[in-house]
Amino acid sequence: MYKLYWSAGSAAMAPQAIILESGARAEFVKIDSDRNEQKGADYLKLNPHGRVPTLVYDNDQVMYESAAICQFLVEQHPELNLAPAVGAPDRARYLQWMAYLTNTVQEAIMHWWHGENFIDGEPEQAKLKAKSEERLARMWTFLDNEIATRGPHLCGEPFYACDYFLVMLIRWSRMMAKPGHAYPHLNALIRETLKRPAYAKMLALQGIDQAV
Amino acid sequence: MYKLYWSAGSAAMAPQAIILESGARAEFVKIDSDRNEQKGADYLKLNPHGRVPTLVYDNDQVMYESAAICQFLVEQHPELNLAPAVGAPDRARYLQWMAYLTNTVQEAIMHWWHGENFIDGEPEQAKLKAKSEERLARMWTFLDNEIATRGPHLCGEPFYACDYFLVMLIRWSRMMAKPGHAYPHLNALIRETLKRPAYAKMLALQGIDQAV
Repeated sequence: MYKLYWSAGSAAMAPQAIILESGARAEFVKIDSDRNEQKGADYLKLNPHGRVPTLVYDNDQVMYESAAICQFLVEQHPELNLAPAVGAPDRARYLQWMAYLTNTVQEAIMHWWHGENFIDGEPEQAKLKAKSEERLARMWTFLDNEIATRGPHLCGEPFYACDYFLVMLIRWSRMMAKPGHAYPHLNALIRETLKRPAYAKMLALQGIDQAV
Repeated sequence: MYKLYWSAGSAAMAPQAIILESGARAEFVKIDSDRNEQKGADYLKLNPHGRVPTLVYDNDQVMYESAAICQFLVEQHPELNLAPAVGAPDRARYLQWMAYLTNTVQEAIMHWWHGENFIDGEPEQAKLKAKSEERLARMWTFLDNEIATRGPHLCGEPFYACDYFLVMLIRWSRMMAKPGHAYPHLNALIRETLKRPAYAKMLALQGIDQAV
């Protein structure tokens, strides 16, 4: 039994898709980010950073950080084959992509959406945003080439949690001048991911869609 | 047999300490960041991002991203007990800290050291740097409280790779107005880590020390 705190289009997307794919019993608790509920006292007790998602498991165990929740869930459900097992040949690459996606790509996207967290002043935030688009263009090009060379997924043949995570991040770039979905191999990855029933169900539950 | 590309005081610190702790056969290849060797053609073939470290294992398998290399190494060497096993009670917390340290704390520190990667203009980089110090002060306070409450380490009694990673990040804050080592529980963690022979040997090999 999982309890996942989510808000629409947030970093809860990938964890929620994995929970749905597992078929595990789950309660999904909506945090309304338009009303800033993630900064409310009750939620801050669970997640002192006021970020979404938070996962509660085994009744009262709490964890946060989307990339970590994805890794935890796929370990709890090895039958999903959403990560290479410890010791498997593509294990290193899987870990590498999870780290890179969360510490580099996700962080660059945060500069675009939430510049006020990183620098004071509107002109400065606009400059940070412009640079993040430049950086992201390089990242999408790089990832698109990686998938072109070794794809159709980040680790080759199998579809793993890092692919869910990447497709989630690409959605966050949809309003940028050159969004992730404009790159052909990333676009193909999105289209394939949309065919996965769990991902489609997650989008429906969150009331969002994903550009292709 | 591992080959680790490192430079002094870089994100290779934690991976190198873990390799030394394992006693595995290893070759350490120095990348001279003062001469910008991490952006040289040969190194970029291994690591297209031109960042240090890069790990080569099983003769010709290549991976990068420091946090991922740490996770990979501790999986290869379960006898070190540097991570909770999959399914163990503190597994979720361990994964959470690895993600948080790399995508939030490490990223904030990068704003301080390498603002030019994120925003154009010297005054803007100075503002980014100032804000990163403010943010890091909150992060160190938070981590110090976490360790005060649940310590002496990030996951309680056992010392894990996330503690190595944290102590490495704290070193990177040594020139800030209020560095991580100024917080009492973080300071105690550093002092304990310095007593670990592998960490001390890594510092000696890299020709660096760590403030307490």
